[in-house]
Amino acid sequence: MSDDGLHSLTYIGYYDAASRPLRGVIPQEEIITLHLNGHPLVSLMCTPIQMEELAIGFLFNEGVIESIDDVAVLRPCSNAHCLDIWLEYDVESPTLRTITSGCSGGTTFNDVRQVRRPVESTVRVPHHMVTCMMQSFMQAMNLYRRAGGIHGAALANATTGHLICLVEDIGRHNALDKVAGHCLQHREPMRDRVLLTSGRVSAEMINKVARMQVPVVISRTSPTSLAVQLARAWHVTLIGYTRRRSFHIYAGEERVFSEPESEATPERYRLPGQ
Amino acid sequence: MSDDGLHSLTYIGYYDAASRPLRGVIPQEEIITLHLNGHPLVSLMCTPIQMEELAIGFLFNEGVIESIDDVAVLRPCSNAHCLDIWLEYDVESPTLRTITSGCSGGTTFNDVRQVRRPVESTVRVPHHMVTCMMQSFMQAMNLYRRAGGIHGAALANATTGHLICLVEDIGRHNALDKVAGHCLQHREPMRDRVLLTSGRVSAEMINKVARMQVPVVISRTSPTSLAVQLARAWHVTLIGYTRRRSFHIYAGEERVFSEPESEATPERYRLPGQ
Repeated sequence: MSDDGLHSLTYIGYYDAASRPLRGVIPQEEIITLHLNGHPLVSLMCTPIQMEELAIGFLFNEGVIESIDDVAVLRPCSNAHCLDIWLEYDVESPTLRTITSGCSGGTTFNDVRQVRRPVESTVRVPHHMVTCMMQSFMQAMNLYRRAGGIHGAALANATTGHLICLVEDIGRHNALDKVAGHCLQHREPMRDRVLLTSGRVSAEMINKVARMQVPVVISRTSPTSLAVQLARAWHVTLIGYTRRRSFHIYAGEERVFSEPESEATPERYRLPGQ
Repeated sequence: MSDDGLHSLTYIGYYDAASRPLRGVIPQEEIITLHLNGHPLVSLMCTPIQMEELAIGFLFNEGVIESIDDVAVLRPCSNAHCLDIWLEYDVESPTLRTITSGCSGGTTFNDVRQVRRPVESTVRVPHHMVTCMMQSFMQAMNLYRRAGGIHGAALANATTGHLICLVEDIGRHNALDKVAGHCLQHREPMRDRVLLTSGRVSAEMINKVARMQVPVVISRTSPTSLAVQLARAWHVTLIGYTRRRSFHIYAGEERVFSEPESEATPERYRLPGQ
């Protein structure tokens, strides 16, 4: 296991008819098993950095824990391929991958929509903050710039635009879990924040965002149809295709407002590293 | 459910400080439940096109069926949110999401590697066929061109470069399952073919490719470290970052050879639509 999330290897580079060995990096992927109260819970394919954040955020987003105070012990196993978590209380071994038992139809949109309540927040974001935060986020994605093929997620302050935490992982869901885990560990509030993601926003992403009570999601790419439906039902502001000067708002547009650029003081919108 | 995999909606387009309603399309995502022999088996988040292919390919790639002859009945349920599949034989309700019970460590790379045997194939591909097939594939991805945020997979003839089938889905794994399902339905061999994918190649993708006995995988983007390890162990040729004139070979480079472009007759390398 390397500790930086990248894996160095030699591969063959082809350019036109000429080939030669090259040395480069690719995203690291490993199988990490979470053990809960002494029993194996789930094996995750992930980038093995920020593993404590992943474990805590996964348990939170799956509804197993409510806060960091529920966790008594969190330590890597001796073989480094698993994490051992003991809670303050017993749990019935949670069946995370539930299979519907509805005999006449299975899960529907209404079933999924019932899982969460709408996100309550009075946060509003000026339009140029949306594009500023995305630029800041993309510049800060270290593994992505070095190896490609990796997803990032970050949480930002909705007033200042500052990035509060930034994580990377081969999995979009893992990245979201790592953000939640970081906030729980550091007792950082997730409410009234803005979540940035490099990847497509699917229904499962909006499900996690609503669990985290984050009111605004900004992506570089497309949402899916179910993600838009859930964002509208749960009152999550969902922004996609964010570029330097433009973006689309698919849900919750009342949280975005136009403010002439000149009225914004440079101080107020300065981002980390700028 | 629309039948073309895209969802039309109105959203707010922002360009600089000006916003206005726009009409556009995004990838469709729905929850489809597979019922096997009368019992719900799994709910998949997917793009609801080519659903029979998805169901058959999923059952094959998960090891539940060996051929299309194992399927007695395959029909949509009345509510269109599930597919009803009856096999020619009884099955113990398969537990697809197995959780490791190894008390001292959980799943490891060696456990995963034991799942498959190496892929046997004498297929060899000239270097310019690699870039030709990728161009042909990217041009043929209809939903991706119209909406973005979607993955494609295709199977191609390794000798002529022709695309045998092309599928699209919000999920990379679903896309691979749809390719397998298409081939099983139409009794198209998968051995000695080339698989093209738009997305990152993870360990689970290589797992499915090895199950399908496909010897060559070509991606536009990066493989993960575990995908490269598995491809090397299972003798799958793994090519990434395929561009117009260049690509990287991460495993099985002996299946790619340099052939001067002039020796290739235009006829032989002509692709569909060219």
